[in-house]
Amino acid sequence: MDLDLQNYSVRTDLAIESREMAGRGQQQPIPGVQEDVEEQDGIRITRLNVMDEAGAQQIGRVQGNYVTLEIPKLREGDSGLQDRVSYIFAKEMEDFIRKIGVSPNAKVLVVGLGNWNVTPDSLGPLVVENLMITRQYFELMPDQVNPGYREVSAIAPGVLGTTGIESSEIVQSIAEKTRPELIIAIDALASRSLERINTTIQVADIGIHPGSGIGNKRRGITKEILGIPCIAIGVPTVCYASTIVNDSLEMMKSHLGKDTAQREAIMGMLNSISEQERLQLVKEVLQPLGHDLIVTPKEVDKFIEDIANIIATGLNAALHEAVTPDNVAAYTH
Amino acid sequence: MDLDLQNYSVRTDLAIESREMAGRGQQQPIPGVQEDVEEQDGIRITRLNVMDEAGAQQIGRVQGNYVTLEIPKLREGDSGLQDRVSYIFAKEMEDFIRKIGVSPNAKVLVVGLGNWNVTPDSLGPLVVENLMITRQYFELMPDQVNPGYREVSAIAPGVLGTTGIESSEIVQSIAEKTRPELIIAIDALASRSLERINTTIQVADIGIHPGSGIGNKRRGITKEILGIPCIAIGVPTVCYASTIVNDSLEMMKSHLGKDTAQREAIMGMLNSISEQERLQLVKEVLQPLGHDLIVTPKEVDKFIEDIANIIATGLNAALHEAVTPDNVAAYTH
Amino acid sequence: MDLDLQNYSVRTDLAIESREMAGRGQQQPIPGVQEDVEEQDGIRITRLNVMDEAGAQQIGRVQGNYVTLEIPKLREGDSGLQDRVSYIFAKEMEDFIRKIGVSPNAKVLVVGLGNWNVTPDSLGPLVVENLMITRQYFELMPDQVNPGYREVSAIAPGVLGTTGIESSEIVQSIAEKTRPELIIAIDALASRSLERINTTIQVADIGIHPGSGIGNKRRGITKEILGIPCIAIGVPTVCYASTIVNDSLEMMKSHLGKDTAQREAIMGMLNSISEQERLQLVKEVLQPLGHDLIVTPKEVDKFIEDIANIIATGLNAALHEAVTPDNVAAYTH
Amino acid sequence: MDLDLQNYSVRTDLAIESREMAGRGQQQPIPGVQEDVEEQDGIRITRLNVMDEAGAQQIGRVQGNYVTLEIPKLREGDSGLQDRVSYIFAKEMEDFIRKIGVSPNAKVLVVGLGNWNVTPDSLGPLVVENLMITRQYFELMPDQVNPGYREVSAIAPGVLGTTGIESSEIVQSIAEKTRPELIIAIDALASRSLERINTTIQVADIGIHPGSGIGNKRRGITKEILGIPCIAIGVPTVCYASTIVNDSLEMMKSHLGKDTAQREAIMGMLNSISEQERLQLVKEVLQPLGHDLIVTPKEVDKFIEDIANIIATGLNAALHEAVTPDNVAAYTH
Repeated sequence: MDLDLQNYSVRTDLAIESREMAGRGQQQPIPGVQEDVEEQDGIRITRLNVMDEAGAQQIGRVQGNYVTLEIPKLREGDSGLQDRVSYIFAKEMEDFIRKIGVSPNAKVLVVGLGNWNVTPDSLGPLVVENLMITRQYFELMPDQVNPGYREVSAIAPGVLGTTGIESSEIVQSIAEKTRPELIIAIDALASRSLERINTTIQVADIGIHPGSGIGNKRRGITKEILGIPCIAIGVPTVCYASTIVNDSLEMMKSHLGKDTAQREAIMGMLNSISEQERLQLVKEVLQPLGHDLIVTPKEVDKFIEDIANIIATGLNAALHEAVTPDNVAAYTH
Repeated sequence: MDLDLQNYSVRTDLAIESREMAGRGQQQPIPGVQEDVEEQDGIRITRLNVMDEAGAQQIGRVQGNYVTLEIPKLREGDSGLQDRVSYIFAKEMEDFIRKIGVSPNAKVLVVGLGNWNVTPDSLGPLVVENLMITRQYFELMPDQVNPGYREVSAIAPGVLGTTGIESSEIVQSIAEKTRPELIIAIDALASRSLERINTTIQVADIGIHPGSGIGNKRRGITKEILGIPCIAIGVPTVCYASTIVNDSLEMMKSHLGKDTAQREAIMGMLNSISEQERLQLVKEVLQPLGHDLIVTPKEVDKFIEDIANIIATGLNAALHEAVTPDNVAAYTH
Repeated sequence: MDLDLQNYSVRTDLAIESREMAGRGQQQPIPGVQEDVEEQDGIRITRLNVMDEAGAQQIGRVQGNYVTLEIPKLREGDSGLQDRVSYIFAKEMEDFIRKIGVSPNAKVLVVGLGNWNVTPDSLGPLVVENLMITRQYFELMPDQVNPGYREVSAIAPGVLGTTGIESSEIVQSIAEKTRPELIIAIDALASRSLERINTTIQVADIGIHPGSGIGNKRRGITKEILGIPCIAIGVPTVCYASTIVNDSLEMMKSHLGKDTAQREAIMGMLNSISEQERLQLVKEVLQPLGHDLIVTPKEVDKFIEDIANIIATGLNAALHEAVTPDNVAAYTH
Repeated sequence: MDLDLQNYSVRTDLAIESREMAGRGQQQPIPGVQEDVEEQDGIRITRLNVMDEAGAQQIGRVQGNYVTLEIPKLREGDSGLQDRVSYIFAKEMEDFIRKIGVSPNAKVLVVGLGNWNVTPDSLGPLVVENLMITRQYFELMPDQVNPGYREVSAIAPGVLGTTGIESSEIVQSIAEKTRPELIIAIDALASRSLERINTTIQVADIGIHPGSGIGNKRRGITKEILGIPCIAIGVPTVCYASTIVNDSLEMMKSHLGKDTAQREAIMGMLNSISEQERLQLVKEVLQPLGHDLIVTPKEVDKFIEDIANIIATGLNAALHEAVTPDNVAAYTH
């Protein structure tokens, strides 16, 4: 989880949230941004392509491809829905990998970012633990690997506080040694919105850009640095207390309806100031008291386990042709 | 954890919060309520005695004794502070048990309420796991038990959703069979306030009164029902998202200062309506969207472990005369 | 796990092991014991009915019905095999419950014996955690329970060392209060044989008879005491080091073939003394040095998790008519 | 854990076991091997220096320094003893590091080998989790690091089966990038003897030499490869079933006393054949049936946690001058 406490702003880790903020609610096309939305069975798929610098400026995200799955009911624990999400996620991953020009047999290194011992930050390591790993067979007995499998390795590099080494340094070292042709990094994110927590999966080909908060030593896991495509899979698992408050004030405005005068009466200036200013105020209120905690739903253990399982299952099916939705359970723990 | 979703109101599980709300900020004495506050080394101890029905009405809590430890810096992970809290908690527990007239050798049944598998609700089971249990020695070889130990047994009864049986039914059955002379029940609570989460320990002799939300079959773990004193130890480990929002609006009022007109300008009616009405509004805003999540700090794994250790260590020292602050580590896992 | 260290003998917890020892290798029928063996797809099912006292004497087991599943390859982690075992276990449980005359809608209390925190002893609690529990719905809204479900409750009572209360006392208290019509207790066992560890499931209607080692206070979970049928599901998860040695010496005899003189030459008296005497010798050798450890395979975490899942899945399908092999995944975590 | 199933022989991972086997019970000095034994308070310290090739041949270990702590009662859970072991381990580590010529401020990389999810193999990752890590402070704000601390980083590289990458490849990559001056690797070992399991800690400056079983790609974590000293800390946490049997037969010989004729009568040729031949026989007996399991004591969860804590505490005190036995608890989780 990459929480940059010093530099927090309305910036969000989710492209669809940036898109909403850019659109300010109106869903007009943004120049330089291709957008495609599909909905099936309670799963909303948004594919964004931020094509040029103008689009990037407009939407506040770097150029690249973004696919987001939103599944508002994912926290309800319906195993049928989980299977469907896993299936669709696998399909989207396959398309995504093809679309960004990675060959079907490219060697993949999966990186599970985060901390085993902090439940809302354990998504990456949990996914890695459930992947079907094959690189050792390709290394030791390449002739005997069945067709339909590609070379997959994985690492859970830990976090700076427990290793003393930046995750990106560790990944770079290993990538230099093992020469994968694609990196897929999984990370837990902070969300702007309570409802997105543990209900949203974002895939992007922009890699991981850690905050610049603690100096330029931190370099990230990106194509620019490593020379190979880096796909980031992110799931919001936490949010700031200030985010909840600010988010609720925004929702209160909607709740109160279109009569501006009435809203003004009830909410005063909170109705009219910009979201940025309002968040500033909320943070001022909360921070001096040490209140701007990062929080997670109380059912976090179960939610993280479920999503880790969805992502591992989906990746196993997406990465190995021989693994299909019907037999994937046999490959995923 | 006893979360009564249907019947939620401004009601809080913490007596000091009720006292603050009753006092509306002014710390005048409340008739029928004795109060004693002490502060040492970053630990604030509040002893409340709600002596009569008038006091109970005024403060909104049933008659009884309440001791609260507030340790604002407990989440910072300072092991020296944790040791001090453990020591003071042991001393307060000893005094409390004596004060409510329980004999020094009374047989104790400790009840760890909550769910192993839901981290913010696992406090009770975790404490039980670290207690020094002696009943089996008293039963099987009473002559050989060293002086300085009393008969202690413990149970973690699980939660309704995984057992199908009310915790209080389980505790009643076992108490009828094993005939303890004192019950001490440990439970995770919901707080009105983010800052109280995992920084506050409340001890009360009023037992556990589960909400009446799901029918009169639920009876509670109380002296009235069991005929023996029931001490409840509670630690807030979660709060509602709506609580965070409402709490922040209250803090915003303080933050904006004493100029009512200015506050009114910024916050509109949110400044003037009652806390109860405001909460109602916040809940209206959040609930239709399924937003009124219960949240916990992201570091919940570590926080719960630390507090469980403090409480288990303190109970071991308080319940067995032979266990002292100096040797307690040898008894507590 | 019920390990009676004082009273250990060649006695085993598995009826098929008793049967083998009684038969001394020859599979002739034993008077008073009905036997039926079936094998399918790598799963061997043995149904024993010890019908009278003579049979019980002969085989060294109390009268009752015993069904054993032996799955030698269960430790290999094949999820297809696990699914088949789960399915067959469900079918056998249904037949077993019917056969012992329990009505299809009888209220069931499932008891998960053992200790959460000792992996090879955590089978019972793990199964309980994954059951579909319904009693609360029958209690609170009996009109709204769909057909096809029966009333199931469950408890993991802990172990004497951490509660100070015998598991059987806890179960008795709860059974008196909640009045189930059938008890199903799950327990980890000690095996005489390494190969049986985590590859064998035994179902018996004789309840749980804890050793008499620590006094007559320990009474067991049996029909005699509780007045209702008590089914015990047992899985060997550990064995004594002395068992391994003795077992190997027995295997060495077979390995060395039929030439007694040769066996005598190689193994000396170890070839000719009775198994009981030999075990006595092995224990003498190991015990003074504190060597008679109880051991478990190093992959115990995975093995226990897999078997707990098989049993929970099977029980969910066996106990609720509406749960079938096809939809059981949706009901079992 | 490095278990080389194909190539198993009487070879053991513990130098003191090699020494015993070389000495065949007689404790005469071995040329080329310096030996120093000390005993205090139930802790036996053996310091071996295998000085030349002749000594290495004789004892069957590579040249280097070996320190072994044997604490037969460590499994009894006495926290006072654990503290003493931790203290002595810290002192021995400090001496060892000095003795092999590493400067007091040398940058250290600690490597926790093994698998998080396999309890008897989780020692390395558990130790790493409890270390005091400082490299990030030296990197980001070198001026502000208090005196008395050195630069320590750590990594738990996972195991080949879950990463697809040899641990040694991962460590080499990271060492090349971060340039430590000393590597300390912690690993769980297989023992020749049940009594050594979880009661023995070995420190050696020979690094980690993984078996050559799966090809020459596996290179090890050694001074030859990395150009810096590599200390290995090993604890036996498992043994083979065949080891238990063979070990017991050896003990049976001692148990039966000095009368060879009597031993011969009871044990036949098992008394006279060489240990190597006997083990071969035992393995023949066990292996065809898939019996040569690797086992661990049933209390493995607790034993591993205790030893991990001892080692982490000891390393924190040994590596940072500012951390002393009195304040170490504040630094070790």
